[in-house]
Amino acid sequence: MIVGIDARDIRFPTSRHSHGSDAMNPDPDYSCAYVTLLMQGGKPGGNGLTFTIGRGNDLCVSAIQGLGKNLIGYTLDDFEEDLGLASRLLLHDSQYRWLGPEKGVVHLAAAALINAVWDALSKRAGQPLWRYISEMSSKRIASAIDFRHMRDYLPEAEAIARLEAQADGRHGRIATLLEDGYPAYTTSAGWIGYSDDNIIRRLKAAHAEGWRHFKIKVGGDLQSDIDRCALFRKTLGNDVRLSVDANQVWDVSEAVNAVEAMAPYDIYWVEEPISPDDVLGHKAIADAVAPIRIATGEHAHNKVMFKQFLQAEAIGFCQIDACRLAGVNEVLAVMLMADKANIPVCPHAGGVGLCEYVQHLSMIDYVCISGTMEERVIEHAAHLHEHFCHPIEIRNGRYLAPTAPGYSIDMWPESMKQFEFPHGEVWTEETVT
Amino acid sequence: MIVGIDARDIRFPTSRHSHGSDAMNPDPDYSCAYVTLLMQGGKPGGNGLTFTIGRGNDLCVSAIQGLGKNLIGYTLDDFEEDLGLASRLLLHDSQYRWLGPEKGVVHLAAAALINAVWDALSKRAGQPLWRYISEMSSKRIASAIDFRHMRDYLPEAEAIARLEAQADGRHGRIATLLEDGYPAYTTSAGWIGYSDDNIIRRLKAAHAEGWRHFKIKVGGDLQSDIDRCALFRKTLGNDVRLSVDANQVWDVSEAVNAVEAMAPYDIYWVEEPISPDDVLGHKAIADAVAPIRIATGEHAHNKVMFKQFLQAEAIGFCQIDACRLAGVNEVLAVMLMADKANIPVCPHAGGVGLCEYVQHLSMIDYVCISGTMEERVIEHAAHLHEHFCHPIEIRNGRYLAPTAPGYSIDMWPESMKQFEFPHGEVWTEETVT
Repeated sequence: MIVGIDARDIRFPTSRHSHGSDAMNPDPDYSCAYVTLLMQGGKPGGNGLTFTIGRGNDLCVSAIQGLGKNLIGYTLDDFEEDLGLASRLLLHDSQYRWLGPEKGVVHLAAAALINAVWDALSKRAGQPLWRYISEMSSKRIASAIDFRHMRDYLPEAEAIARLEAQADGRHGRIATLLEDGYPAYTTSAGWIGYSDDNIIRRLKAAHAEGWRHFKIKVGGDLQSDIDRCALFRKTLGNDVRLSVDANQVWDVSEAVNAVEAMAPYDIYWVEEPISPDDVLGHKAIADAVAPIRIATGEHAHNKVMFKQFLQAEAIGFCQIDACRLAGVNEVLAVMLMADKANIPVCPHAGGVGLCEYVQHLSMIDYVCISGTMEERVIEHAAHLHEHFCHPIEIRNGRYLAPTAPGYSIDMWPESMKQFEFPHGEVWTEETVT
Repeated sequence: MIVGIDARDIRFPTSRHSHGSDAMNPDPDYSCAYVTLLMQGGKPGGNGLTFTIGRGNDLCVSAIQGLGKNLIGYTLDDFEEDLGLASRLLLHDSQYRWLGPEKGVVHLAAAALINAVWDALSKRAGQPLWRYISEMSSKRIASAIDFRHMRDYLPEAEAIARLEAQADGRHGRIATLLEDGYPAYTTSAGWIGYSDDNIIRRLKAAHAEGWRHFKIKVGGDLQSDIDRCALFRKTLGNDVRLSVDANQVWDVSEAVNAVEAMAPYDIYWVEEPISPDDVLGHKAIADAVAPIRIATGEHAHNKVMFKQFLQAEAIGFCQIDACRLAGVNEVLAVMLMADKANIPVCPHAGGVGLCEYVQHLSMIDYVCISGTMEERVIEHAAHLHEHFCHPIEIRNGRYLAPTAPGYSIDMWPESMKQFEFPHGEVWTEETVT
């Protein structure tokens, strides 16, 4: 039985070296609100986190502590029996719901808690999360989903039918994953705060490691965006994929102009061109710049937003986030809708813990939902993996299938101690390193 | 100069009598995070609040304290000189922005702070807020707006032109407001937790006071919704207006069915039928139930959402909220877009302090933007006004124009002391009253 919720404010001073910098976020300090479910008798619970970029991470910690009370008194058996229970206990609390609804700090907090429950359940089953879910019946997977507000696009019966259609091939695909892993792309070479020399060096190193799909940050002044694309092609040639990410800084017409100016450099996708809430704006851009496709989702706050992006045919890639959406349950809902729309799911990662999380989600998508890796890639960034007990493993630009039980989000106690805000040693040292 | 931010957690135990109850929110405790700007030398600053319904109000208080640091060191002259400054200082903080962006707890907190700055500026000018803005040039009003992410619908030059088109008639409309006030409707008779007898008694009393437009809560089971509409017409007849509010509980097809079932009772608008994020869903319902019109907005979290509701012709009434949107600045942006779309602005109120706030906004809309009161009404609920130093004044179902300097949101110190959570006496009494 859950008897308490431990939540901690962990922050990494990534802004000191411009790691993670982009046109909207010049100085992120990659952070997380880290949850541990405290079980009766000190039995092992689950861990979860939600990702932020610094100031305000304390709000997520407080929201986890407050909202998390709704889980107290329930057992892992309760959650196992009703896979939608944790999600309902957290998202249907009407007083907390008012603060979103289903968005912002409260939703981020719910994500950390819900993911902690899934971590606990899959650990108890002795399986990595992706495998735990891959062994469930279609009906059971669908039982995790709250179909309220999405039935007009995907009702429950149709969701189950979509899962059933892929049920036969699951075991073959599990074997493929264990053997070959899952394709990926890297963002680590092109943060906006990096100098040209730094970018060239990082691109060459990543290429040597086997990467063939890269993303660089744009959204500065237009000429510098074009120069970055040119630098990329000059450094690595035309046989590799290039995606660009503007992190929401443009307006619709600016986005169209910018994409047209970068088009000669063979752009695979254009990510977050405008406000992440603007379904109709994305549609207008997508129509104007086709066949270049638009990607968004890391700030799409719930299934209703994704439903509309898909209904409107506004996006070409669906970038779910493991803890912007309310955990595994809501991600399953979105992946099923993306499958219906025939739009590839390419999760947002980087940050801290996001790579560890989303590898499971893409693998669930492959095994249970889409049945294909075609056009699908998991984002990769090279930072902060050393703080996790079971960090991601990359080989030749692919994620290896995780094998440790759980959701891969356990952090080393020593890391948490060192980086806890504001009293960990990295934040109290006189010298900024 | 602002030297500090005071933020307090004020909660009223309204759930004890089902005041404010609806299908989504059965037991709201109307609450607010109340801000006071602390000025150098103890000079008078401004007050602002953001409205919540209980649990999680503490998160808004914390967010105000953290985000509010961005205002420290600035003077009222700075804010007067650049009407967009406070808004930019709060909404463009990239680390806090990540937690939304521009939605949820952080946006609610920004609203309270921005409104406090407007309160301070209009108090210093010795004018009620609506009058303070009504005396500004068109260009100056537009300078308060951040046009990022809305230029595709309403660029700055067009916004100024729209304001200019109404500039000549402003003084006549100010005189009209001072004489006749502004039309309103009341929600106080039809909360979902009220018994039929209670509703009948309240409807009759409100009618006797001069009210002619009423809103009742629906979204229970369909038969009870129909019964409530029938009860309304039986009690007050057919010469008064009836709007209904489902508070988001339906899916698209449920909404269409329900509205068709209630249509014989002559429904003026249907409010919040589904998820407040679902622009395309609202459009589908609006098309299906025309000529009955759809209203939403109290949970539409920013100008980009309203932009889409208007672009898609998904709503027939635009229900701005004074502190769900990021304060006066973002409300001005939305009211100008609604004017372009020729959709009446009918603000969300009730709650605590919302009536006090939005009367100013509707009056600014009338004087500076739309130039008409046609089809426009301000929501009214009868609770909690006694806690404000300058409460709303209603006569014959109309709001009288406020005359006290500021944004009418000053709360009595005694009220705050009594209702502060968790140590105020109303929360520590043994006996629940």
